[in-house]
Amino acid sequence: MSRPPSPCAPHCLHCESLYRSVRRRTEGRAVGGCPQKSWRIVKTANGREIPASIPGYGIVSPYVGPATTRTFVTRATRQVHPVGHGRSKRLEDISAAIDACELKSGDTISFHHHLRNGDQVLNMVLAVAARRGIKDLTIATSSIFGVHAPLVEHIRNGVVARILTAYMSGPVADAVSSGLLSNPVVFQTHGGRARAIESGELHIDVAFIAAPAADPYGNLNGVDGPAACGPLGYAMVDAQYADRVVAVTDYLQPYPLCPVDIFQDQVDFVVVVDSIGDPAGILSGTTKPTTEPVGLQIAQSAARLIEASGLLEHGFSFQTGAGGVSIAVAEYVKGLMQRNQVQGSFAAGGVTGALVEMLELGLFRTIFDVQCFDLRAVESYRRDFRHQAMSASMYANPHSRGAVVNQLDVMILGASEVDVDFNVNVTTGSSGMILGGSGGHADTAAGAKLAIVTTRLSSRAGAKVVGKVDCLTTPGETIDAVVTEVGISVNPGRTDLIDRFHAAGIELMQIDEMLCAARALAGEPTSRVQGAEVVGVVEYRDGSVIDLIRASR
Amino acid sequence: MSRPPSPCAPHCLHCESLYRSVRRRTEGRAVGGCPQKSWRIVKTANGREIPASIPGYGIVSPYVGPATTRTFVTRATRQVHPVGHGRSKRLEDISAAIDACELKSGDTISFHHHLRNGDQVLNMVLAVAARRGIKDLTIATSSIFGVHAPLVEHIRNGVVARILTAYMSGPVADAVSSGLLSNPVVFQTHGGRARAIESGELHIDVAFIAAPAADPYGNLNGVDGPAACGPLGYAMVDAQYADRVVAVTDYLQPYPLCPVDIFQDQVDFVVVVDSIGDPAGILSGTTKPTTEPVGLQIAQSAARLIEASGLLEHGFSFQTGAGGVSIAVAEYVKGLMQRNQVQGSFAAGGVTGALVEMLELGLFRTIFDVQCFDLRAVESYRRDFRHQAMSASMYANPHSRGAVVNQLDVMILGASEVDVDFNVNVTTGSSGMILGGSGGHADTAAGAKLAIVTTRLSSRAGAKVVGKVDCLTTPGETIDAVVTEVGISVNPGRTDLIDRFHAAGIELMQIDEMLCAARALAGEPTSRVQGAEVVGVVEYRDGSVIDLIRASR
Repeated sequence: MSRPPSPCAPHCLHCESLYRSVRRRTEGRAVGGCPQKSWRIVKTANGREIPASIPGYGIVSPYVGPATTRTFVTRATRQVHPVGHGRSKRLEDISAAIDACELKSGDTISFHHHLRNGDQVLNMVLAVAARRGIKDLTIATSSIFGVHAPLVEHIRNGVVARILTAYMSGPVADAVSSGLLSNPVVFQTHGGRARAIESGELHIDVAFIAAPAADPYGNLNGVDGPAACGPLGYAMVDAQYADRVVAVTDYLQPYPLCPVDIFQDQVDFVVVVDSIGDPAGILSGTTKPTTEPVGLQIAQSAARLIEASGLLEHGFSFQTGAGGVSIAVAEYVKGLMQRNQVQGSFAAGGVTGALVEMLELGLFRTIFDVQCFDLRAVESYRRDFRHQAMSASMYANPHSRGAVVNQLDVMILGASEVDVDFNVNVTTGSSGMILGGSGGHADTAAGAKLAIVTTRLSSRAGAKVVGKVDCLTTPGETIDAVVTEVGISVNPGRTDLIDRFHAAGIELMQIDEMLCAARALAGEPTSRVQGAEVVGVVEYRDGSVIDLIRASR
Repeated sequence: MSRPPSPCAPHCLHCESLYRSVRRRTEGRAVGGCPQKSWRIVKTANGREIPASIPGYGIVSPYVGPATTRTFVTRATRQVHPVGHGRSKRLEDISAAIDACELKSGDTISFHHHLRNGDQVLNMVLAVAARRGIKDLTIATSSIFGVHAPLVEHIRNGVVARILTAYMSGPVADAVSSGLLSNPVVFQTHGGRARAIESGELHIDVAFIAAPAADPYGNLNGVDGPAACGPLGYAMVDAQYADRVVAVTDYLQPYPLCPVDIFQDQVDFVVVVDSIGDPAGILSGTTKPTTEPVGLQIAQSAARLIEASGLLEHGFSFQTGAGGVSIAVAEYVKGLMQRNQVQGSFAAGGVTGALVEMLELGLFRTIFDVQCFDLRAVESYRRDFRHQAMSASMYANPHSRGAVVNQLDVMILGASEVDVDFNVNVTTGSSGMILGGSGGHADTAAGAKLAIVTTRLSSRAGAKVVGKVDCLTTPGETIDAVVTEVGISVNPGRTDLIDRFHAAGIELMQIDEMLCAARALAGEPTSRVQGAEVVGVVEYRDGSVIDLIRASR
């Protein structure tokens, strides 16, 4: 379904003619060009062909592999406006903050998704910017949800010209998929976003931080107030590197706030509003395991793999998402750890009540938490010393002095599609429309010793195991196993794991067999009509380009 | 005693001839020069005359006043060497760390004083550097104590050519006072050190951090292990800005350490040694109030001032050092807060058991802690959520977005000398020998609403209230009151305070009367023979030069 016709496509982005057929196959080097403009295309390590330069994005550095290739990197400078003795940081409203920060057309402003589908701060700031006639903004936000629907109008009106994000769903995703945004959206990973900010590749003029609690001098936390959400891990990086930092809160406390996630010496201004977010959209009460038999079967298979991997021993570390199957895997792992009397070192995430329960049972010594997914996790972070916050950089930045993902034993991942090369798509659906993004997917896959994709063979939209993923989010060389309801397939590169699983009596299947089973279930994929226009650039965590998203028509 | 003969001194540093007499009196501008080299001298806001350039230091920016004059500052870049999946940070020993960091002659290395007079890490690293033939090092260390005596030999042998510090006592101070160091020592404040590092003015090639506890991936804390000392507030800044960061520990714990003061993403290497420090030199059991009647009388007067100042109300904030008189002030303030049913907002410091007790009694809501002075404070930081660490930058950096010192109501300060302009010397003794340094003295004085110097009128060395301080550490315009056993003198610039104290029936005296009383007690000061050679440059917190220290012969 998803394999683009080759070699006569994709179209040249500059002259709409076809590329010349591929001349050389050297990965990461020029492999062809446009006959009219001599425009080069480059090829990634996964064989995706990408123009060497993309209008509205710039020069492409093609993906060359998951390992860090840099000996050293340089951290960005930024401006800091000293706040002397006796100066107040309180401002009347968002408009006053825009004035104080001298925000102007063409600037880059950032937001964060710890309030998820309850966030009102992005909408609030953009509404004021639009009223003030500010145009051509770049929005660097860690994720975009349905609640951010008003952004569509801002795109249409030219208030917003560029978006960088790690995840996008809802009306904004639909609008961007259809080509509404004047420049391609840039998909980053959570770690890649931190890296880009710290390197200066992504320079933020003003960071707006939704603060569930704040004091008048800019100490912020995410655990108090009506919009309590957990650690402010994604915003921590922006607070360090943005030229200006504005905290927007609906819960102002006397100085000094305690505890503090982001400290006063990183915050320029504090604005109090009626509400920063709708609690109903921020957190669920407790994330729950799936109860569907197919989901439970997949979860059980994944847990068996973990047990047989040799990793489930003293010091074991584990991360999983908030989906029902992932939580079910955590439940099974909990049972295994109890039975085998294993004490793990840490759980990481995106933290759920399921991981908190394992901490409280003594199955893990600690938790590293970049954001909470449910109220139980928030409560744990609030009162348990062992439950520690981490910044997005500490979590996953490939160019730091060592991210937490590097220490992960096992990571449980989802997929929109997975292909016969173990490449995973969590960015687009089979219709080609944007429905997500990496978040920490590619980061944790690269870091974990055992990265397991759990997925059903098919969904209503079609097969989920495919010949070639429509959009490549996470490269197959970082995925170790795929678990579906018909069986388990292990990346042939991991002969060590294959030997272990065989020794444990676990039956494995080839990924091609899984593909056949998926096609038998869901039918052959139908060809999708793909536009020439690039609406999205998918960056790998190091900032190289791993794939493009073309307009869905 | 300490006023240098004028205008024919000090000597020109370049040609050893005399300066031309002062031509213009404009503060901070050229006021004279050397006849042979046309060497200019400049004058600070406090009237100190300083060469516009000092060999071994560079161009002088003269002190112009305590307020921040910069609209914005720029943060330094630095190198980060990415640590990818699977790479170990453990190194065999200090020598291996020197290799791994490619440390070479002429480099700048940094250390921190949280192990105080028990620290062995500075000595250990320099011993290896000396053996390896490394020369001409710049040592940026937050303080130097008696335990660092081996540094004298390294200075003599040319291993160490430059020192920047906030405090210096013991044999190294004696050696530097007598001119052993080939370049003048640079005295910074704690906040000024953080500012210099963050601005790039002080670029650190390799930071060596004494870590009471560490895990193999570089998470560090100061609360576990045999050398537990409290938060690692001074090292936090270096960990962020040094090109290379080496943790040296004697207490390696499994990954991940918990709690964490300095996170793994800031640490390059971890070296395990037998011992990083002698507990006997690190902390006292509990710091205790003075029992001497004179000290108690001074403390009681200071507490009366605080009560009458109008600041001792709900939200009150307070900092004091670890000296016996300071602790006694804290005891009296505790009684006042209990009697008046005042709940303060925070205590800050350099934290002692006395402040912890006030936290535990509910007299303060929180503590901000850059380092602990005693075991009780360490224990409190270890287990009490309300007792939070702060970095030296958050504590006192004048070029941050708002330091904690800016929020202080009352600061209790000591003095080696205080003069009739309320200038304070805590850097040299009356003999002209170096015996301390600002630490946070000038920072907290500038930030606090009420900065009180408590001091006896005289010591064995002579009068402590003088006509002009030998060395100007903290400018008089930031000192609000001086309390001695003969009375209280308030800075005439603080007419608001004078009115309040009069209304409260507190008797005040002129600082000149205090000077007379001191001279009556200790006799007239004798003229000190001062060399021409500049052995120390005293920087104010913003990096301007506020005074010089000349060789003691």
